[in-house]
Amino acid sequence: MQYLNFDKVPVYKKLAEHAGTGFNFKEKLDAKRVEDCIVPMAASLNYSWAAKAADSQCIKLLQELAEQQELIAKYKALLNGEMMNTGEKRKVLHHLLRGEQGQPVTEDGKNIGDFYRKELDRFSSFASAVHEGKYKGSTGKMFNTVVQIGIGGSDLGPRALYLALENWAEAEGKKKLNAKFISNVDPDDASSVIASCALENCLFILVSKSGTTQETLANELFVKDKLTKAGLDASKHMIAVTSETSPLARNSAYLDSFYIDDYVGGRYSSSSAVGGCVLSLAFGPDVFKEFLAGAAQADKLALNENILENAALLDALIGIWERNFLNYPYTAVLPYSQALGRFPAHLQQMDMESNGKRVNRNGEAVSYNTGPVIFGEPGTNGQHSFYQLLHQGTGVIPLQFIGFSDSQRNDDVIVDNSISQKKLAANLAAQIVAFAKGQQSEDGNKEFPGGRPSSLIYGKKLTPAALGCLLAHFENKVMFQGFVWNVNSFDQEGVQLGKILTKKVLSGDFSDGALEIYSKILGIF
Amino acid sequence: MQYLNFDKVPVYKKLAEHAGTGFNFKEKLDAKRVEDCIVPMAASLNYSWAAKAADSQCIKLLQELAEQQELIAKYKALLNGEMMNTGEKRKVLHHLLRGEQGQPVTEDGKNIGDFYRKELDRFSSFASAVHEGKYKGSTGKMFNTVVQIGIGGSDLGPRALYLALENWAEAEGKKKLNAKFISNVDPDDASSVIASCALENCLFILVSKSGTTQETLANELFVKDKLTKAGLDASKHMIAVTSETSPLARNSAYLDSFYIDDYVGGRYSSSSAVGGCVLSLAFGPDVFKEFLAGAAQADKLALNENILENAALLDALIGIWERNFLNYPYTAVLPYSQALGRFPAHLQQMDMESNGKRVNRNGEAVSYNTGPVIFGEPGTNGQHSFYQLLHQGTGVIPLQFIGFSDSQRNDDVIVDNSISQKKLAANLAAQIVAFAKGQQSEDGNKEFPGGRPSSLIYGKKLTPAALGCLLAHFENKVMFQGFVWNVNSFDQEGVQLGKILTKKVLSGDFSDGALEIYSKILGIF
Repeated sequence: MQYLNFDKVPVYKKLAEHAGTGFNFKEKLDAKRVEDCIVPMAASLNYSWAAKAADSQCIKLLQELAEQQELIAKYKALLNGEMMNTGEKRKVLHHLLRGEQGQPVTEDGKNIGDFYRKELDRFSSFASAVHEGKYKGSTGKMFNTVVQIGIGGSDLGPRALYLALENWAEAEGKKKLNAKFISNVDPDDASSVIASCALENCLFILVSKSGTTQETLANELFVKDKLTKAGLDASKHMIAVTSETSPLARNSAYLDSFYIDDYVGGRYSSSSAVGGCVLSLAFGPDVFKEFLAGAAQADKLALNENILENAALLDALIGIWERNFLNYPYTAVLPYSQALGRFPAHLQQMDMESNGKRVNRNGEAVSYNTGPVIFGEPGTNGQHSFYQLLHQGTGVIPLQFIGFSDSQRNDDVIVDNSISQKKLAANLAAQIVAFAKGQQSEDGNKEFPGGRPSSLIYGKKLTPAALGCLLAHFENKVMFQGFVWNVNSFDQEGVQLGKILTKKVLSGDFSDGALEIYSKILGIF
Repeated sequence: MQYLNFDKVPVYKKLAEHAGTGFNFKEKLDAKRVEDCIVPMAASLNYSWAAKAADSQCIKLLQELAEQQELIAKYKALLNGEMMNTGEKRKVLHHLLRGEQGQPVTEDGKNIGDFYRKELDRFSSFASAVHEGKYKGSTGKMFNTVVQIGIGGSDLGPRALYLALENWAEAEGKKKLNAKFISNVDPDDASSVIASCALENCLFILVSKSGTTQETLANELFVKDKLTKAGLDASKHMIAVTSETSPLARNSAYLDSFYIDDYVGGRYSSSSAVGGCVLSLAFGPDVFKEFLAGAAQADKLALNENILENAALLDALIGIWERNFLNYPYTAVLPYSQALGRFPAHLQQMDMESNGKRVNRNGEAVSYNTGPVIFGEPGTNGQHSFYQLLHQGTGVIPLQFIGFSDSQRNDDVIVDNSISQKKLAANLAAQIVAFAKGQQSEDGNKEFPGGRPSSLIYGKKLTPAALGCLLAHFENKVMFQGFVWNVNSFDQEGVQLGKILTKKVLSGDFSDGALEIYSKILGIF
């Protein structure tokens, strides 16, 4: 297997040449193209790419790219436990949390899949025990709220997934506990969340892989202080999710501890105890397992060598086409689902932290663009916000739509002969066509240039399995793009410098004059 | 007064030439530059631009640009009621909601400032009457929750402002009612908000200027249906905020109605009854008036011809420098304040809907870039998410930081010798310097190129007046940029095409084959 910089892959030049030919999908977007350009995904979802600026020659070249850059072989190597996180010299095993797609992965004679399964069993049992009242607060009250303390991957993914399933769970009678989240070191975050809770009914989950995250440790002590002042035994109100080597592990300060290892990065940890504890407590372990099964199905489909049968791979490659040959620096994620309101924020981390890199996997600077800026808000809200620029701005922004036929709560109203869910879906269909085809007008202000590309992931309803598929789809898309760019998508050295300078400020080391004045005007001293 | 396309302004070429000289602020950022590059704002806030890639020659040229493009004269014309919304042929009067900065604005003999003051008085009195129990629910229960039904500008601004002041109001003992928001036509949005409310204690605010917004009318009927089914008299639980000519005005279906006019655009309506009703109900009318006073102060400072004494103007011009001469297509808004968690989403609408235009104020296509993509999340959360790409990605993204010395809730904890608020501020100071200066390293993966520009708005605490100043600062910045680009920042024709196609879908008009298949796969028929 070869690791080539992207611009050294033979097909790179052909793609650059083809970009000049300018496929006008605006005029080609008819019923047949929409019907032809659909790739089945896991959990009954589908990926529609008809409104992308990719013609058959483009697809042919992207298939060549997949082969020449050995994308599936690299995915298999990752699944089989090869050291793909070259920066930190680690395996990358978040897929294994959802089931084995490759060979068993072992280390020092230990089967890592067994370790993941054991932890899944342990926190599933713990969640069931809480639901059955076997664990209670220190004054004997049942737990009715779980509060996750974590930041970054310990917050964004779990929070987005909780919100994505909360309505579904309420409608299905599967909601067990409310979940809340404390993340920011801003004391107003912890203070206001705690003020909204009845502490005697609260179970806190402290999530930090290293056990040294500044924000999370500050918030832990914030919470413990409040628990103690409320006359509660903090050790009966808190569990830890951490690595086995962290100071939080096997510590009597916690009711129990659940483990992850260094082979699961923060932004990929939603499938581990980091997401699993809070989701199993909130909705029951079976719901979390349905989510994992949907993700595992998506992981399996991502092994297909044919890009027209592999939604994650095709999505990745079209993204490369848009980023490196059409030169679009951003992508908007637009779910037509209020439940997915924080899903774009999670994708923002997953994508930008993974592929926002300027060096290749060996640390050498690359001379092509890598990860785009990701942003988004749910539709139809976004339509009344930033869509003006998407339709009529001076730049072109590729769009990723997501939509469902059915609502989650089955609670709707008929106004003007249609239910709100139909209006939501009608807006989505209309936007895809409006962006693609535009509108001519004598009045420049009413002219829509069109030619604005989008793809659509759609399905019947946002269920746990569909959500698992969605998450895995984007994880795998980002992974494939990282392989194309030859970057290491699994470390995050870019977060280190800020940490070092923060420590300097807090220790009063003002050898840098600018840092001193900024600290002064911000009231630090 | 002249309205020139930006590239026809004499100084345009000089700016383009100067961009080639490449000011290395990375090496110039010392204590003196930080101290020298501060512009006082209203409400004790300050604007720091030391870490921007602007040297003294750049500032000189930007001052020339302000003069040649007559930015202050255009602002004065707007204040004095000139028809600045050329697309819809309307005045632009959101500043007048906060007080008169120019001459009295009259129309058909009517003083529009008087009209705005009257409505402010009316909804202030209404809010006080609710607080005093003079209005109650139809079963005699006190209102304890206000629910705003609106979308776009009727949602994003008011919601962001409510969240920005909720903690402050709780800490100051000024919180009167909880506020919630229903915006999306996704039925799960209304359904879940209603399920979280005790309807007999709820007062709903229906907000639609035209009285015809599809999402808002669907959600109104959704809510009324639930009120009726709960045995409540819907007309005793709902007020309207609308224009005097809308079908919602003077309608006995509402307890009362408060008015705005066509001279206040949705995204600029937070200072009107659209933001004023919900904020006055939640926190009391005096708090809303403090907010308006802070904004009015900022509006006044924005009249200064000297760009080094006018934060909004300087911020606008540096943004132009970055967008048109350094060619950065985006800007990140990064408040180090959990209370400002939704403020970037509001700015996303305010900026992108205002200046995401490809034609000038006369409808002629322009040949330069206009509004950038705006995105952001609060720090320190963002540090653990997308900052990797900001530090080490292949593109440069200008950053807008916001930070405060004090928390809002005065509830903090000491860990490792510092309170969380100090850690928050230390992270902010550290990030500015890390982005600007970077770090050299033998290991490419640990190399930070630096040279990533940022500005900082800072102050002691996020109070109502500070929030008003912040809001007006960004409104005025966006206005000045629109003047530079010679676009109409006050209409939004780009939202129309989607509405037309949505109606087609809902009426079963499938003359477009692609639209038909998209509608089919989304389960619309």
